[in-house]
Amino acid sequence: MVQQRYMGSSTFHFLNDVRLQSSAAVVGPKEGSGLLGKEFDLIHNDLYAGQETWEKAERKILEDAVNTAIEKAGLSTKQIGAYLAGDLLNQNITASFSAQTTQIPFMGVYGACSTSMLSLLLATSLVDAGFVQYAVAGVSSHNCTAEKQYRFPTEFGGQKPDTAQWTVTGAGAGVVGIGGNGPCITHATVGKVMDLGVKNPFDMGSAMAPAAADTIATHFRDTGRKPSDYDLIVTGDLASVGHPIARELLMNEGYQMGERFQDCGMMIYSEEQEQFSGASGCASSACVTYGHLMKEMDRGNLHRILVVATGALLSPISYQQGEPIPCVAHAVAFESDTLRF
Amino acid sequence: MVQQRYMGSSTFHFLNDVRLQSSAAVVGPKEGSGLLGKEFDLIHNDLYAGQETWEKAERKILEDAVNTAIEKAGLSTKQIGAYLAGDLLNQNITASFSAQTTQIPFMGVYGACSTSMLSLLLATSLVDAGFVQYAVAGVSSHNCTAEKQYRFPTEFGGQKPDTAQWTVTGAGAGVVGIGGNGPCITHATVGKVMDLGVKNPFDMGSAMAPAAADTIATHFRDTGRKPSDYDLIVTGDLASVGHPIARELLMNEGYQMGERFQDCGMMIYSEEQEQFSGASGCASSACVTYGHLMKEMDRGNLHRILVVATGALLSPISYQQGEPIPCVAHAVAFESDTLRF
Repeated sequence: MVQQRYMGSSTFHFLNDVRLQSSAAVVGPKEGSGLLGKEFDLIHNDLYAGQETWEKAERKILEDAVNTAIEKAGLSTKQIGAYLAGDLLNQNITASFSAQTTQIPFMGVYGACSTSMLSLLLATSLVDAGFVQYAVAGVSSHNCTAEKQYRFPTEFGGQKPDTAQWTVTGAGAGVVGIGGNGPCITHATVGKVMDLGVKNPFDMGSAMAPAAADTIATHFRDTGRKPSDYDLIVTGDLASVGHPIARELLMNEGYQMGERFQDCGMMIYSEEQEQFSGASGCASSACVTYGHLMKEMDRGNLHRILVVATGALLSPISYQQGEPIPCVAHAVAFESDTLRF
Repeated sequence: MVQQRYMGSSTFHFLNDVRLQSSAAVVGPKEGSGLLGKEFDLIHNDLYAGQETWEKAERKILEDAVNTAIEKAGLSTKQIGAYLAGDLLNQNITASFSAQTTQIPFMGVYGACSTSMLSLLLATSLVDAGFVQYAVAGVSSHNCTAEKQYRFPTEFGGQKPDTAQWTVTGAGAGVVGIGGNGPCITHATVGKVMDLGVKNPFDMGSAMAPAAADTIATHFRDTGRKPSDYDLIVTGDLASVGHPIARELLMNEGYQMGERFQDCGMMIYSEEQEQFSGASGCASSACVTYGHLMKEMDRGNLHRILVVATGALLSPISYQQGEPIPCVAHAVAFESDTLRF
């Protein structure tokens, strides 16, 4: 008989005691001197991270995060059955090249900045079902690799509007396995791709807000939960322009989100730091979740949280061809032992 | 208790009766007039497939394949719990935009041309474990979108060496569910990323051969099977340069592959068609598997097959920066009712 793990339209219910065995966040200099600097495992004081190119630096940062997480779990790479990872670069090269280094069976995933929770929910699914004993999920982004690829050559010094966001330089990784003392991963809601016609690549927050709101509302409907069932519901990188839009869309659906509704993109940099409307990139939600929120759960400050990573699935070609920006959001629910069903 | 679905290092064993409910392959004009033309569900006689751009044409072809597969299964898109898809374009735009059209909860995956079996093995895992009742896996490639992105502007008319390959214009999709009469998906072996130092992007076959050989040998070790347990073992797109290398590497490991060892990249075009060393692209293995091999199993001509999709995980940036080409291969085992364990 097949075990029933689906709840409603697109929410997975993990039946076994799947937990984060460990997690790690590694960041660049700007993130290290931001609001959460003390929460990260490693801060590179140089955007090159000692490498020759920004692309290699991003890879080093991801490898640092993955290796640190595996080490913190007391495991060796040989014990990890699957590595699920993605990044923002063309052909996912950061993740793919890092998989050559780790030599763990590799599955590349892509959901732009939502990849943080996409990789984690798939890793959790594989562990929950017993396909692998341990899996590691990881993502990265780098401000300079993203700028030159998505926007303009960095030397060009292009100006940006206030609705733009600052891509986080960093990486986050989490090791998933059964049992232990870490936060339990109980549910995941897979997003649908939404496109409300926003075409401005300098306003990703507005483009992504409807996808975030849709995934959150779907999660509530599928699980029968409501906003107050969570201590914290964080979006990935809607930032100060997109986050109020998501709040309003959810209010229109009947959900009063209140103070518990926050955004990772608004938690990383201090007000003094140049950031436009806030942080973005796969590493925005990953570094906040793996570096900060998991520690807050360990400290007993948070008991049940929902991380809703948001992704803008455009490419430079698609927007140059006049296409709108399709977006998606994937949500993962974490729970500490004091508040398990 | 967790069900044990892992066999050895990186092979998944599907415990339930997970089967292809249906599959579909849609191709462009050149593929339609090739050796397997009669096997495909739909042939577009125009590389634009009635669209304004090649990117939109590729999307149309993928949507055609996904919708045809769902229709052939007698299902509606609302009954499909997950859509796993990927392609070769930057930021996976073909897959992402097609997910906006289908409105099925979407998970983007990326493994270059290995994405065909990566998406299928993850879809099968989710169905086997009961996270969703039905899932659809799909991939696409388009000769003109791939040329302009990976190599030169198509107007440039760049010359190529004989070791180059011809990217297939096409898409394949398969709907996975429990029960029915279709081919059963019994095992999948997830590949490790291999890099043997090949840096020539016009010789992907040689670069990918070691990854294919490694995944096949791992599959044999993990499952205790041998080459003669399969009627057919096909690689994805090693073509005439890479395939003999994989055969030799496997012989060095003690596996005599014999006549049953073939390559999808050598099955699509006739000798008269310009193809260099053979076909490549996500659609190479996808169209051969979903269009031809599944029909051969239905006809009783094949009983147990292993499809080993191969992927070169480079990007134009990585090779311009002098990096070698990391490669991966993912294998999926199919079995007809007459030969089930």
